[in-house]
Amino acid sequence: MKSHTKYLTFNTPQRRQLVRITDEAQACCRAAAIEEGMLLVSAMHITAGVFVNDDEPGLHADLEEWVQRLAPGPAADDSRPGPDYRHHHSGEDNGDAHLKNLLIGHQVIVPITKGKLDLGPWQQIFYYEFDGRRPKRLVLKAMGE
Amino acid sequence: MKSHTKYLTFNTPQRRQLVRITDEAQACCRAAAIEEGMLLVSAMHITAGVFVNDDEPGLHADLEEWVQRLAPGPAADDSRPGPDYRHHHSGEDNGDAHLKNLLIGHQVIVPITKGKLDLGPWQQIFYYEFDGRRPKRLVLKAMGE
Amino acid sequence: MKSHTKYLTFNTPQRRQLVRITDEAQACCRAAAIEEGMLLVSAMHITAGVFVNDDEPGLHADLEEWVQRLAPGPAADDSRPGPDYRHHHSGEDNGDAHLKNLLIGHQVIVPITKGKLDLGPWQQIFYYEFDGRRPKRLVLKAMGE
Repeated sequence: MKSHTKYLTFNTPQRRQLVRITDEAQACCRAAAIEEGMLLVSAMHITAGVFVNDDEPGLHADLEEWVQRLAPGPAADDSRPGPDYRHHHSGEDNGDAHLKNLLIGHQVIVPITKGKLDLGPWQQIFYYEFDGRRPKRLVLKAMGE
Repeated sequence: MKSHTKYLTFNTPQRRQLVRITDEAQACCRAAAIEEGMLLVSAMHITAGVFVNDDEPGLHADLEEWVQRLAPGPAADDSRPGPDYRHHHSGEDNGDAHLKNLLIGHQVIVPITKGKLDLGPWQQIFYYEFDGRRPKRLVLKAMGE
Repeated sequence: MKSHTKYLTFNTPQRRQLVRITDEAQACCRAAAIEEGMLLVSAMHITAGVFVNDDEPGLHADLEEWVQRLAPGPAADDSRPGPDYRHHHSGEDNGDAHLKNLLIGHQVIVPITKGKLDLGPWQQIFYYEFDGRRPKRLVLKAMGE
């Protein structure tokens, strides 16, 4: 069995922002030199998400509206404040980001087949920052043979 | 380490439809001849979900109502149109299906123990088509020893 | 390749309750004696969730309010009944618990690096019981080398 581990760090200028990371995941898969296995892509913070979906700007705008409807928070660029949460009594202002993390999920597993990420034609991997403007880490871990 | 990969293709007559795939997953586990490991069950499209839950028709009707409430779209049989999404400006009509995919999730990992899927008594694996009436693929990948 | 499997059983006094299980997961990782790999943490029931987030009481109260808003059910201590679901026609009273399971997810994968769970500074693993007061199982399965 082989394994390979790589960490990425994000520091987005906006509170909330999408970052496409398919290429970084593919590079980790190549570096692992694994023919058959799995790649775990997992945020190491509790206020960020990882998901697989389409790289289409209209959809990303829909998604932003949707996460705000289901787990309301400040505007992505902080131009409007969000509702208060009990979590804010601990001195934080990111209660919404914790709920968005649970809504979207913080990890995906991508199968590796014949040495490549076995993704469908439109499947792209995204990191969804929900509370940026500071360094946040993500772990890529490949396992297989 | 052993691995085994299998693809399933769905072409549901309705836009939105549930398909139980526990037997297909169990067959893949047997074909892999793995005693201890994991089976990844992952949709290869961004408008379909995979989940583990109960095989009970009342629950499935509740689930249909729930995904429509949280991510509104056309009726399952297309008898009523859904709301407009920005994603539709790209020529698509399935914005709701992308959000439902993120709500339900597109993959599960099933542990394999003593050569069998290690599921609880009521755990069944389902493919949830959110934009059917065309061929859609899913990958089953088992890994272990 | 090595693997190690352990089952936990919960029997929470309340219908809905959070249980922190990071220590149990870490113990399973140690018992597996795996240096590099992955640990699957997966509820074996369809009315319980598993997630990774912060161990902060205010956030937990926000989370309880949030799951009740998106998938309404009885009060956590059963002091108020919840709405009716079609699933209840089968004799059950836990329709909301099935939806909460799908909202939160029933499993996470934790990377194992240098013999330890590779979690971020605030990442804690939780079992979220949605229909307690009876024995419910969870499986921990480590795989790696």
